[in-house]
Amino acid sequence: MLYIVGFGPGDVGGMTLAAREALNRSEVIVGYTAYVGLMRGLFPEKEYLATPMRGERERVLAALGLAAEGKTVSLISGGDCAVYGLAGLALELAPKGAEIELVPGVTAALSGGALLGAPLGHDFAAVSLSDLLTPWEKIEKRLDCAAAGDFVIVLYNPSSKKRADYLARACEVILRHRSPDTVCGIARNIGRDGEEARTLTLSELKAASVDMFTTVFVGSGETKMINGKMVTPRGYKNV
Amino acid sequence: MLYIVGFGPGDVGGMTLAAREALNRSEVIVGYTAYVGLMRGLFPEKEYLATPMRGERERVLAALGLAAEGKTVSLISGGDCAVYGLAGLALELAPKGAEIELVPGVTAALSGGALLGAPLGHDFAAVSLSDLLTPWEKIEKRLDCAAAGDFVIVLYNPSSKKRADYLARACEVILRHRSPDTVCGIARNIGRDGEEARTLTLSELKAASVDMFTTVFVGSGETKMINGKMVTPRGYKNV
Repeated sequence: MLYIVGFGPGDVGGMTLAAREALNRSEVIVGYTAYVGLMRGLFPEKEYLATPMRGERERVLAALGLAAEGKTVSLISGGDCAVYGLAGLALELAPKGAEIELVPGVTAALSGGALLGAPLGHDFAAVSLSDLLTPWEKIEKRLDCAAAGDFVIVLYNPSSKKRADYLARACEVILRHRSPDTVCGIARNIGRDGEEARTLTLSELKAASVDMFTTVFVGSGETKMINGKMVTPRGYKNV
Repeated sequence: MLYIVGFGPGDVGGMTLAAREALNRSEVIVGYTAYVGLMRGLFPEKEYLATPMRGERERVLAALGLAAEGKTVSLISGGDCAVYGLAGLALELAPKGAEIELVPGVTAALSGGALLGAPLGHDFAAVSLSDLLTPWEKIEKRLDCAAAGDFVIVLYNPSSKKRADYLARACEVILRHRSPDTVCGIARNIGRDGEEARTLTLSELKAASVDMFTTVFVGSGETKMINGKMVTPRGYKNV
């Protein structure tokens, strides 16, 4: 039996009860090294198998192999199991008839949003800035379309050592359609030590330095600051 | 103290531990009638205040009023607290300095996605088809941009009695940019009695009849069917 578990931001409160139950039931928990570290603190009695970043294929095959041996296994992703997680790859690589249960979780757009206020109060789009698996042209096209559609935009993987200028490039694309004063927000280390959230304008965001533990929010034309919080109204107030 | 709680799809497993804790701590739970019914089954000992649909403003003001009297109150939304939920309106209407904590939850894009497979394995956009608070022209523009950007598209509020043809109209807009064979999915009554999920093509979706308890998924150009599941690969398989 293989559970593919999205464990949320990383603290026990952000995990669903179904995720906790799946992890409790599992004999082996398989994941990326940093995530295994987080779960080891919460479920110290379990057997763990950690694989490094970019070892996604081996990680998924290892989990499927253990499950095929009859073990109860959890393959873990931070946030949700599917949103930039491992569920898709596991479903692709699984043999027909494999017993798999997907356990969704609170993705960073939601947990980071709650730290900032209610940026996702209306239609939104999620875009990953990682070009490891997606050509930059496709990323740029999506940013352009999301900005043209006046979506609130959530940026996952906004930076890495090799991609230090990607956030600035993304902001330039969005600025084709949005005012430099657009309300934006940054959430970092959500649900973990060093958790922080702050708001800034789109022009400030363009100059900001962020790391790979950060999720970035760009408001729509309707997003505003209310008592220090980033809020995209749905319109109820005027009904 | 006011908690604004997204309780997830509706079953106890889909709720986060933080949501359960907030509800356990609350003296009064305030929400839309159908949601109050769901929570009453899980937390029978609590005091409840239910208000009908479209009573959002009164509901939020009632919750803020009870909190101002010194009560511990939870204002509940299905799914996440912000995504088409009440967090934004509560932050707008709250007096300065009010003690408010936002508790994010698993929104239908994630819980419905897990029933269908892993449709949200790459960039996605969420669009509500409800024109109660948004002009149809804006909804159409967003659908057009999301389709042009090759996002996976999640449609919230795809139908109601007064808007029986909205899903067909949305599919027509998306068909400007997508093949009629695009893999799509429908999830209904997620986490509740009568839960169901099925996949179909975009041209079949255009002719489908859905209700207000349904969430609709339109695949990107990369989404495919794998062993009966709807999967949008992130690209790991070819790394």
